[in-house]
Amino acid sequence: MPSVTFLPSYRKIPVDPGTTILAAAQKAGIQMNVVCGGQGKCGKCVVYLKSGLVSFDREKYGRYFTAGELENGACLACQTAVEGDVQVMIPESTLIQEQKILVESLGIGTELHPSVWKYALELQPPTLEDPSPDLTRLLWGIQKMGGPVAEKIYAPLEVLRSIPAVLRDSGWKVTGTVALVPGGYRLINVEKGDTARFLYGAAVDLGTTTVVVYLRSLVDGKVLAVASNYNRQISCGEDILSRVNYARKGGLDRLQQLAAESINAALTAAANSAGIDRDEIYEVVISGNTVMTHILMGIDPAYMIEEPYVPVVRRYLTASAQRLGIGVNANAGLFVFPAVSDFIGGDVVADILAAGMAERDEVSLLIDIGTNFEVVLGNREWMFSCAGAAGPALEGGEVLFGMRANPGAIERISLDLDTLDPTYETINSVKPRGICGSGLIDLIADLLRACVIDRTGRINTAIRSPRIRQGAHFPEFVVAWARETAIGKDIVITENDVKSLIMSKASVLAACFTLMNEAGIRREEIASIFFSGAFGNYINKEHAITIGLIPEVPIGSIQNIGNGAVEGANIALINRKKRRIIDEIARMIAYIELNAEPSFMDEYTRATFLPHTDLALFPEVERLLDACRIRRG
Amino acid sequence: MPSVTFLPSYRKIPVDPGTTILAAAQKAGIQMNVVCGGQGKCGKCVVYLKSGLVSFDREKYGRYFTAGELENGACLACQTAVEGDVQVMIPESTLIQEQKILVESLGIGTELHPSVWKYALELQPPTLEDPSPDLTRLLWGIQKMGGPVAEKIYAPLEVLRSIPAVLRDSGWKVTGTVALVPGGYRLINVEKGDTARFLYGAAVDLGTTTVVVYLRSLVDGKVLAVASNYNRQISCGEDILSRVNYARKGGLDRLQQLAAESINAALTAAANSAGIDRDEIYEVVISGNTVMTHILMGIDPAYMIEEPYVPVVRRYLTASAQRLGIGVNANAGLFVFPAVSDFIGGDVVADILAAGMAERDEVSLLIDIGTNFEVVLGNREWMFSCAGAAGPALEGGEVLFGMRANPGAIERISLDLDTLDPTYETINSVKPRGICGSGLIDLIADLLRACVIDRTGRINTAIRSPRIRQGAHFPEFVVAWARETAIGKDIVITENDVKSLIMSKASVLAACFTLMNEAGIRREEIASIFFSGAFGNYINKEHAITIGLIPEVPIGSIQNIGNGAVEGANIALINRKKRRIIDEIARMIAYIELNAEPSFMDEYTRATFLPHTDLALFPEVERLLDACRIRRG
Repeated sequence: MPSVTFLPSYRKIPVDPGTTILAAAQKAGIQMNVVCGGQGKCGKCVVYLKSGLVSFDREKYGRYFTAGELENGACLACQTAVEGDVQVMIPESTLIQEQKILVESLGIGTELHPSVWKYALELQPPTLEDPSPDLTRLLWGIQKMGGPVAEKIYAPLEVLRSIPAVLRDSGWKVTGTVALVPGGYRLINVEKGDTARFLYGAAVDLGTTTVVVYLRSLVDGKVLAVASNYNRQISCGEDILSRVNYARKGGLDRLQQLAAESINAALTAAANSAGIDRDEIYEVVISGNTVMTHILMGIDPAYMIEEPYVPVVRRYLTASAQRLGIGVNANAGLFVFPAVSDFIGGDVVADILAAGMAERDEVSLLIDIGTNFEVVLGNREWMFSCAGAAGPALEGGEVLFGMRANPGAIERISLDLDTLDPTYETINSVKPRGICGSGLIDLIADLLRACVIDRTGRINTAIRSPRIRQGAHFPEFVVAWARETAIGKDIVITENDVKSLIMSKASVLAACFTLMNEAGIRREEIASIFFSGAFGNYINKEHAITIGLIPEVPIGSIQNIGNGAVEGANIALINRKKRRIIDEIARMIAYIELNAEPSFMDEYTRATFLPHTDLALFPEVERLLDACRIRRG
Repeated sequence: MPSVTFLPSYRKIPVDPGTTILAAAQKAGIQMNVVCGGQGKCGKCVVYLKSGLVSFDREKYGRYFTAGELENGACLACQTAVEGDVQVMIPESTLIQEQKILVESLGIGTELHPSVWKYALELQPPTLEDPSPDLTRLLWGIQKMGGPVAEKIYAPLEVLRSIPAVLRDSGWKVTGTVALVPGGYRLINVEKGDTARFLYGAAVDLGTTTVVVYLRSLVDGKVLAVASNYNRQISCGEDILSRVNYARKGGLDRLQQLAAESINAALTAAANSAGIDRDEIYEVVISGNTVMTHILMGIDPAYMIEEPYVPVVRRYLTASAQRLGIGVNANAGLFVFPAVSDFIGGDVVADILAAGMAERDEVSLLIDIGTNFEVVLGNREWMFSCAGAAGPALEGGEVLFGMRANPGAIERISLDLDTLDPTYETINSVKPRGICGSGLIDLIADLLRACVIDRTGRINTAIRSPRIRQGAHFPEFVVAWARETAIGKDIVITENDVKSLIMSKASVLAACFTLMNEAGIRREEIASIFFSGAFGNYINKEHAITIGLIPEVPIGSIQNIGNGAVEGANIALINRKKRRIIDEIARMIAYIELNAEPSFMDEYTRATFLPHTDLALFPEVERLLDACRIRRG
């Protein structure tokens, strides 16, 4: 059997001939960047063959490499089949790097109303005078301790079978665990002795990229640990579309398993950090987008990516954690947030819960921006939602020096409006390698205020500054000189980059206006704007208004809810009463398909200006720009 | 590997050295009589070694055999270990024979209110204008067809997973199956095309000895087939106590499996006879005694046979048929009748339902007699129950020529009160081999009426008749002369037999009176007596009163309900509304422990006369006996 040795770690793994390097890496537990899901289309899984025999079609895939790289043995891991013992070097850029994962959440104070309880019991052994059956004795004991009425508690077979021995072996001192389930209560565990204080629950945000887990005591509601890691499905494709395609090709089981493994890895980290046993976790609440939750439940997501884009299920789901491979107590239940449509998933419903939107009379706007964005408008009476592709620009993609929020990314920047010299901060305070989304928004806002760009995004090359110059294809502005950077090149933003960013932000703003039109709501009626997710957490809110990413509202009414998906899961975990609200949200929320909405394209066109064609909608920004213009003269 | 060849069938089976002949027979599918469960205590599993080497302790077990039998190679199958290739002959008496199994039931007209429904749907495929999720589309379709409200239907994971493919593969023409479950409805199956007419249910009586299955259409309620067979657990012990002991020694799983196999065998027979697929059976309702239902559910019955005699569970149980190994539709549910105590099982609750006792204002008495008997007294407001050991006499045991209701048993007999010559009927109308329970009751009644025996059971040897004579130990009455019989001996009933029968019947009568005392009910207030089970079905009701087996009531108010256990299961299967009554019965019924009831012993003593010490309680019998006495002079 041939083997593959991965450098620099020298990890060696035996494989069948014909196995791809990518498959070998997955088998070895190495997480590679595979944006396209291993179809040879993204050119991200670059490795260098150091020795040995492989088959790789250089003619077909040569376009991804320079001549020098090809000389050094560059090939695509997903398209290279092992023919004998080989050694390959994995460059750092091919490995998935630690990104900033947003685990913080708003932490709305939620009362503790768990849906799992433990009752420590000291039962009287049966006698000839009181020969009640074991189960009756146990359930009456629970009822006497303030638990649910005995008759309402259902005992499943596996628990029933365990009861006679546990009662007698423990000398009739046991702890019973009861969970609220649709239609009643369920006796989910009976164990020896008093274990009432060991009762934990987990709130999980199952994101396309990352998994975040909160571990909480269900006795006092305290957060005991937080852990996060990558969604291991990334090795099957970076974005949702690649995952669905992977599932269509028979990979659903594998994706399901990877989702469970990703959750389990975070659960283990959290449990270890809290010093508890995963077996003592009795409930898991999970929020995720519609595709993620379908995959986790093992339900085919294929039909969501082709017309007419229908999910299989939209309601909240409950299931046995064990059946889905989630490593918690064997009888623990899962509560999975309901979705609204293919694009408005349980993560957005969790956002809404976390923001408290559905419990208010005032109208709020919720915005979650990533590669895709979701917008929700409404209050306790009604809700409209929509979703769209923002394009990768806001996340640093399709921008020459754009990058994700990895170390070295410029995340904050401001320009001296006179000298145009920037002051910036990078992630981890290292030399800059590029600019991430929040930095780009700062930059566009200040370039606009400094009149370096006009409201269409065109760079004013008439301004005399060494930072403004003609680049290879477009005019550009130099953000950092080569000597300041970690990459030995000037970091610039081109006019083309600015236009990409304008198109991205225009989608979001047009979505907001479309929902507002639909509901007949003017911007003055919006009491709050909630930002959910990493993007909203890091951007400068004033700048977001200045460039017209969101409607103009008073700054004070904009709030970050952090990771709303995990916050919503936390709320549902510790307060069962909020689950009714979840159900109401999922029921009342209307989904507006933007592509089917003629007014959306008009709104989009009007939004492809900084901040918008109609400055009357952005009165404060108009004042600001007027002041700047007067200043520059 | 040694082998065992069984004669007369010449069935040959390879076994490990040291295997017992009994285990080999079980492996070969041969059902032997093993009353003690294979402990060498009952001497029933007699086989004759014809050739080969075995180890068998003749000294220890010789007492079961005559010298001649030992010479012929007699040994006990359960205590004989195979050492090499052997041939053994199995005498007919060792094989379990076909007994009359009571499958008939009263057939009370019950309205059809099933708890499983099928809906044939022709759904509109999704469009961009109507992109509802698959599940929503399906459930709305069901609701539109008159099914339950979509929101109340829970879809379990395995069904959810099947939905997208089934909907599309079938061109959106599917049949959905919905079952009523605690707290709502459950979508238990979705299949292609219109299968709405293929919807069946099974009612099962899981008896200690036999399993009876009714297969019914749940579309129109019609009975499609009835099948029955032995409970295969018999190979692990004939009576309940042996089974529980077998379970205690690690045999619970085996017994569970045998219970499921026994049910499956009957289901297969019924399904084949009806020409349907077992996969189209969507619900199974089972009644059985407390030990049988515990074992079927895989729950340890050990604590029911030792003080203080507690079952693990008494409520009705639901479970997945598949999980218990019942071979019906993978998503079918089981409904198992609740028990009242260790001795009043779900079979008795089913009897009560079948008799309609709990739906009447009048007071009824229900009697089920076997080796053990159960008596229930009550009406819709209250109910008392008790159980006891009748001893084997009423079933033909412990009576010299007593036998079970097998071919050749005298089942009806009447005496010419002048000549004392009997007229009798045997089962299958063959030459008599012995007398079964119903024959014994006829015989005692007529011996009493003919003054051959007095009210204490003593035989009047002063009467001149060739049929009345002194036997080896006791006076006896000749029922059939050797020449008439299949066994070449006179079939007689001894005075000792009569006394055994009196003790047996006294237990039943005393139980009836004890409950009547407890409830303050006189015999005149009893509107009906219901006999459940084989025994009650075959006995002559007048004779039962004459000998004082049951309280004296007008003959017209005594009714046989046949196999009440399977009738009750049938009612619960086709009419879900009756399940509420089951629950009420199990709740309101009080269990009287006869051994803890001082008055029971007094009642028993008073009942050890024919019919009773106090003839005032049996006024019609008194008149009858007076007439006979006068007649004989």
